[in-house]
Amino acid sequence: MTRPVLFLSDFGLADEYVGVCHAVIARLSPGATVIDLTHGVPAQDVLAGALALATAVPYAPEDAVYLAVVDPGVGTERRGVAVEAGDAVLVGPDNGLLGLTLLGLGGARRAVVLDPGRVAPWAVSGTFHGRDVFAPAAARLAAGAPLEELGEEIDVEELSELLVGEPLVEPGRISTTVIGVDRFGNLRLGAGPGELREAGLWDEPTLALHHAGEPVELRRVRTYGDLARGELGALIDSAGWLAVACNLDSAAERVGLGRGDRAVIGAAETR
Amino acid sequence: MTRPVLFLSDFGLADEYVGVCHAVIARLSPGATVIDLTHGVPAQDVLAGALALATAVPYAPEDAVYLAVVDPGVGTERRGVAVEAGDAVLVGPDNGLLGLTLLGLGGARRAVVLDPGRVAPWAVSGTFHGRDVFAPAAARLAAGAPLEELGEEIDVEELSELLVGEPLVEPGRISTTVIGVDRFGNLRLGAGPGELREAGLWDEPTLALHHAGEPVELRRVRTYGDLARGELGALIDSAGWLAVACNLDSAAERVGLGRGDRAVIGAAETR
Amino acid sequence: MTRPVLFLSDFGLADEYVGVCHAVIARLSPGATVIDLTHGVPAQDVLAGALALATAVPYAPEDAVYLAVVDPGVGTERRGVAVEAGDAVLVGPDNGLLGLTLLGLGGARRAVVLDPGRVAPWAVSGTFHGRDVFAPAAARLAAGAPLEELGEEIDVEELSELLVGEPLVEPGRISTTVIGVDRFGNLRLGAGPGELREAGLWDEPTLALHHAGEPVELRRVRTYGDLARGELGALIDSAGWLAVACNLDSAAERVGLGRGDRAVIGAAETR
Repeated sequence: MTRPVLFLSDFGLADEYVGVCHAVIARLSPGATVIDLTHGVPAQDVLAGALALATAVPYAPEDAVYLAVVDPGVGTERRGVAVEAGDAVLVGPDNGLLGLTLLGLGGARRAVVLDPGRVAPWAVSGTFHGRDVFAPAAARLAAGAPLEELGEEIDVEELSELLVGEPLVEPGRISTTVIGVDRFGNLRLGAGPGELREAGLWDEPTLALHHAGEPVELRRVRTYGDLARGELGALIDSAGWLAVACNLDSAAERVGLGRGDRAVIGAAETR
Repeated sequence: MTRPVLFLSDFGLADEYVGVCHAVIARLSPGATVIDLTHGVPAQDVLAGALALATAVPYAPEDAVYLAVVDPGVGTERRGVAVEAGDAVLVGPDNGLLGLTLLGLGGARRAVVLDPGRVAPWAVSGTFHGRDVFAPAAARLAAGAPLEELGEEIDVEELSELLVGEPLVEPGRISTTVIGVDRFGNLRLGAGPGELREAGLWDEPTLALHHAGEPVELRRVRTYGDLARGELGALIDSAGWLAVACNLDSAAERVGLGRGDRAVIGAAETR
Repeated sequence: MTRPVLFLSDFGLADEYVGVCHAVIARLSPGATVIDLTHGVPAQDVLAGALALATAVPYAPEDAVYLAVVDPGVGTERRGVAVEAGDAVLVGPDNGLLGLTLLGLGGARRAVVLDPGRVAPWAVSGTFHGRDVFAPAAARLAAGAPLEELGEEIDVEELSELLVGEPLVEPGRISTTVIGVDRFGNLRLGAGPGELREAGLWDEPTLALHHAGEPVELRRVRTYGDLARGELGALIDSAGWLAVACNLDSAAERVGLGRGDRAVIGAAETR
């Protein structure tokens, strides 16, 4: 019985890159189940990839092999790694992409630097380590290979960390950014219940969103359908982030914000 | 042996929503086969989802678990249901999405209202029942759980029906709408062989399409390649609908029509 | 044990066409593994499909069933075929789509013309042979059916060949076209190491790209990260083609070239 592979990348689905990695896994570990978490991570956006990967932790098979490739430094000195955490094992570039997921799994326990000479079944290209190094490593781990077969062990303290901009929390005010926009136009902010409580905003029935444009009032609700058609609101989304939503419309378009934009959340003024 | 799961949603593939649902099924029902019917249903378009789901019936494994999530009412009072029909079982919101598929399978035989307390393996969010309720229910059914384990039985007569606008058929004339446009630009109309026969248009070698712009002549053909390059024509498509097609070009762009637009089909005038 | 099916098409993922073909395979060959190579081939672009399919050969399971559908001639006189090559077998329209892959596998050994009457489990539509002929044929082959069960044998010399425009190679100069642009904006040219050596350009540290606009200088590098941020360069890509790339930006947008455009590669002038 092979371990399931959970695969995330920024390859998109228009080209054959994802499919070739699937072919590699089927060739090296016949019968392995491969789950595509998403391949729609914005190109070379390591932070967006790290956030998406981490959302899967509570829901994925506990013994999963996480295969994650968002790799602007492919072919340069950046290392590839395989890391054990909980009952799972993660494979990817050592650029911070795996950080939030490792946290969610209780922290890295053991790590190796992938040695292409031991991992790759063919000559390694300069531009496609997903095919030549990472997918082969994940396939071997799925088939039961021990971590040490893939390269030299390193201290887990050496793994790269991801620099996520922490929100600035003051009484009555959270300064943060839009960390994601989904297909439905929901704006995900870099803050959650903890920051709302810390700022004393958790029980506010209406929040205010300050940004480059006009401030916007957001009714605190539990789900989209609690809002009237076209009404803007704030809710805790399914991954635990504070989100700005609009029932049956795109909040992103309505408010005029996108990924990376600054946003400040406060209490709505009494009028 | 698990039952195959046929999965349709409006989640798109840019985000990780579909992947997380796959992870849930792999966690709760290891080894289950999941077939992605499509996740490109236009956001919150229940009718488009219902039409796409129903096209799979004649071709899918007979014991399939249909998992369908197009769910504008997530988190509100709308119910989630599981329904037996033929040898298959369907899981989704009770908003009409399952209706055409139930018809295609010979009608609902038995139904339960999903009880999140029995189905969900974790706390249920207000915004992502695909992950918390529907995928877990489908996974349990795929693994062989009986319907009654998921909730209380209801009368199948209580299931929501989908209101599909019926075409208006008169002698020599069918008034309908564009119910879909595919990637190739083929326009699918809400009428088929039955309506063409009823209107006395079945044997017409050339039809006329009347819409907001200039009327367009459509040669009746069997397939795209029967048309000259760039020629517009009418044919019965692979799902049994009347379609407007253009060989090696987009009929939608040529005619200037899109989903939901009115269209009237008549006989071409002799000139 | 079934053989894995490697599936490529121009169906896209917005509609249910790909999913229905998956359903067909699950119905006719339960438990078969289906790998989606890509369904993002530009609509009806046989050459792009042929190129994408062939890239998988060195990485796919050796006994794979290749299922390829880019089929502008569906429903007309063009034949469907199944072809043995190496340990693999290929299924698709006989329009040149399979040609490069057959070459990569060492050449066609045996071929049959698909007989819909023997292959299709239901009435064959005029417009969707992916569902009615090709996927059923692939499913039967995956389940172990011998080739001759699907139709009459033909001479492999009769198979259609694909006309790929050969690059024109002169001393110091290669005239070719852009044969593909990927998600990252990398421009793939219709030439590789062989042509560079033949033109005496292999050891040039800087190449010049001549096209309709201003000539562009390209530093020869091994991978994207060897370039400074925003610098344009030339490299051999992961499939062995000469590519124009830009570190952390889209070369296609920077240079203003797209698929099918003419491009001439020479040595950079000394300045």
